[in-house]
Amino acid sequence: MIVQKYGGTSVADTGRIRSVAGRVAGAKQAGYDVVVVVSAMGDTTDGLLAMAEELAPSPNARELDLLLTAGERIAMSLLSLAINAAGYPAASYTGSQAGIITDTAHGRAKIIDIRPGRILQALEQGNIVIVAGFQGMSTALDVTTLGRGGSDTTAVALAAALGAEFCEIYTDVPGVFTADPRIVPEARKLHAVSYEEMLELAASGAKVLQLRSVEYARTHGVKVHVRSSFNDDPGTWITEEDVRMEQAIISGVAADNSEAKITIEDVPDRPGIAAAIFRAVADEGAGVDMIVQNVGRDGKADVSFLVPKADLRRISAVMDRVLKEFGAARHLIDDDIAKVSLVGAGIKSHPAVVAEMFAALADEGINIEMISTSSIRVSCVIRAGDSERAVRAVHAKFGLGEDARGVRDHE
Amino acid sequence: MIVQKYGGTSVADTGRIRSVAGRVAGAKQAGYDVVVVVSAMGDTTDGLLAMAEELAPSPNARELDLLLTAGERIAMSLLSLAINAAGYPAASYTGSQAGIITDTAHGRAKIIDIRPGRILQALEQGNIVIVAGFQGMSTALDVTTLGRGGSDTTAVALAAALGAEFCEIYTDVPGVFTADPRIVPEARKLHAVSYEEMLELAASGAKVLQLRSVEYARTHGVKVHVRSSFNDDPGTWITEEDVRMEQAIISGVAADNSEAKITIEDVPDRPGIAAAIFRAVADEGAGVDMIVQNVGRDGKADVSFLVPKADLRRISAVMDRVLKEFGAARHLIDDDIAKVSLVGAGIKSHPAVVAEMFAALADEGINIEMISTSSIRVSCVIRAGDSERAVRAVHAKFGLGEDARGVRDHE
Repeated sequence: MIVQKYGGTSVADTGRIRSVAGRVAGAKQAGYDVVVVVSAMGDTTDGLLAMAEELAPSPNARELDLLLTAGERIAMSLLSLAINAAGYPAASYTGSQAGIITDTAHGRAKIIDIRPGRILQALEQGNIVIVAGFQGMSTALDVTTLGRGGSDTTAVALAAALGAEFCEIYTDVPGVFTADPRIVPEARKLHAVSYEEMLELAASGAKVLQLRSVEYARTHGVKVHVRSSFNDDPGTWITEEDVRMEQAIISGVAADNSEAKITIEDVPDRPGIAAAIFRAVADEGAGVDMIVQNVGRDGKADVSFLVPKADLRRISAVMDRVLKEFGAARHLIDDDIAKVSLVGAGIKSHPAVVAEMFAALADEGINIEMISTSSIRVSCVIRAGDSERAVRAVHAKFGLGEDARGVRDHE
Repeated sequence: MIVQKYGGTSVADTGRIRSVAGRVAGAKQAGYDVVVVVSAMGDTTDGLLAMAEELAPSPNARELDLLLTAGERIAMSLLSLAINAAGYPAASYTGSQAGIITDTAHGRAKIIDIRPGRILQALEQGNIVIVAGFQGMSTALDVTTLGRGGSDTTAVALAAALGAEFCEIYTDVPGVFTADPRIVPEARKLHAVSYEEMLELAASGAKVLQLRSVEYARTHGVKVHVRSSFNDDPGTWITEEDVRMEQAIISGVAADNSEAKITIEDVPDRPGIAAAIFRAVADEGAGVDMIVQNVGRDGKADVSFLVPKADLRRISAVMDRVLKEFGAARHLIDDDIAKVSLVGAGIKSHPAVVAEMFAALADEGINIEMISTSSIRVSCVIRAGDSERAVRAVHAKFGLGEDARGVRDHE
């Protein structure tokens, strides 16, 4: 059994849906039981969201989820009709019908259980099964959505629950690259990356896969194959790190322009304050990235961190409230930044990589404003306008486009 | 408590949705508990249907229903968001969430039960409740649709189940008229019609209300008020026949161009044959209208009847199959016809009305091809091209536009 997931561009119009139907039928003919997860057609979801915002500046989360799930419902039933018309029995299921049970966090719900009874029954009856991505039913019996890119998570979670051989994610790019090919033309497609590297790449702004879907795949050991729905070329496998990967140092470089920087000045240097601040942010359900605190002076410190621009207004309001309690002076917002990250399993054993990355940026005259490192990633916050130049410089510095030292080349 | 239903043109865009939200809020402020039933925005359903037909010439009925129900889901959640934004708590429910249980006849499901637990709970919590029209959940737990105009039935059925005071049907016309005002400019809006008259008008091509919703209203004694969503004028009440109506003879004249005529020639004049023919048509779920059989000659008869043009191809195939069994020669199809009907509670006690209608058509040189009468209706099948002229002639003959003899005038 395999799970295939098709993104919005892959089902953007009836012509594309028919072509996806052909691909799905091909997998069925090749002997697989096939479960297909679909996103909404093209920019349907954005269109629905725009109407909602026009009517309600702060839309009610439960109602918004009911609205947004209409997109996948349309795509899944059209795909099912197209597969049926091609002569293969098919049946489509909403998230709720497919037994995808989530928590009650509307707009960013987490899958907490999958009860695939109806899907298994439909498969046994010989059907190709289509499932609406991005959605589930909460424990309170309400319709929920999993957040942007949630269809990837639906696919991986179904693959895990059904014990599928692997999960194919069909998208509008051919796989995972050493850098965004639109910025770095000589970027190369990777044959394979480990879950950990893919996690860091996703967190660093590579938009190929939703971060949570990679976490889910790692936790449940689901083999994921990211590939293009526009041709038959193999894409990138995301799996356990294995022997073949051992020699690789750097997987790729990514830039993220979707975050803004918040700096809190003059935070009293007492225990519990940072915890209170970030607890308040977490309660808003917003992700925080790259928390940096400088050395305190006069018993006060500056704390900077990144948040998604989409959450900025909300979090800024939280800051106003929380900081008052702690007597911190104020917070500053800077949304003209970019985060450039270098990711590779070899970084932990090659400390020189960090210095070389800084050198690459310095050579370009690019100022580094914040630094954060993990064992397999180095991230630098720079001015937004320097982002593409930085990616090109780092990509070139490590020779990622060529068949050069330390670069993985299994293709 | 009241139930309001808004049709597709009433929620065609975000501006219209906002205006509906205002009207709903007004009813809430006037002290009512409000349940709102919505159709899909504008021509959303037609757009979905067109995509489905492009992908699958004979779409699978279960999948098609999943697709089509997306339209009402979008409209209901947007309306709920708009009402919330206006400061009134609101919650929206799909047909399945609202407990609308149907049989399993996809595309033309019948409501068999309403379990309004969640709706009542939401009302108790002070919410305005929005329900998606046109849809339900079958006893097999699949999503179903109720057929064209099914939202009217949803509204009336909910009004009955909830014991609502009345059911307001908001539409793009101001009420029920003595004739279609686009054809007869002097047509008058009726203040009230009985369920029976409305049934006949709906069956005669007046498109104000879905036929089944009127049947449902009559069976359950639901008072229905059909009115415009574009202004505050009172519309037409559909209720029990009462004393005020006693003097009325004619309610209106309607034309229906949506049907085609099937004529079966040389049907053996034996018992059971007509039953077999119309059993086969009924098994297809198609409605049959105006069955007329002439006097048999040589042991054979001709049978004519009307069917919706939309079902014509399907029924024609059934005829081919059934007629072979009975040795009937063949069936002829004529889709260039119109049915013109005169409806009025007084027809039964005023036999001259029938003759006067025929005279009105004869005066215009319009040939009558089939006749069918009930106690409160006379219908004539004529050439499609004569339809508008016939309506104007009959309307004038009975002085329906003026304050003339026999015409109801309660306004």
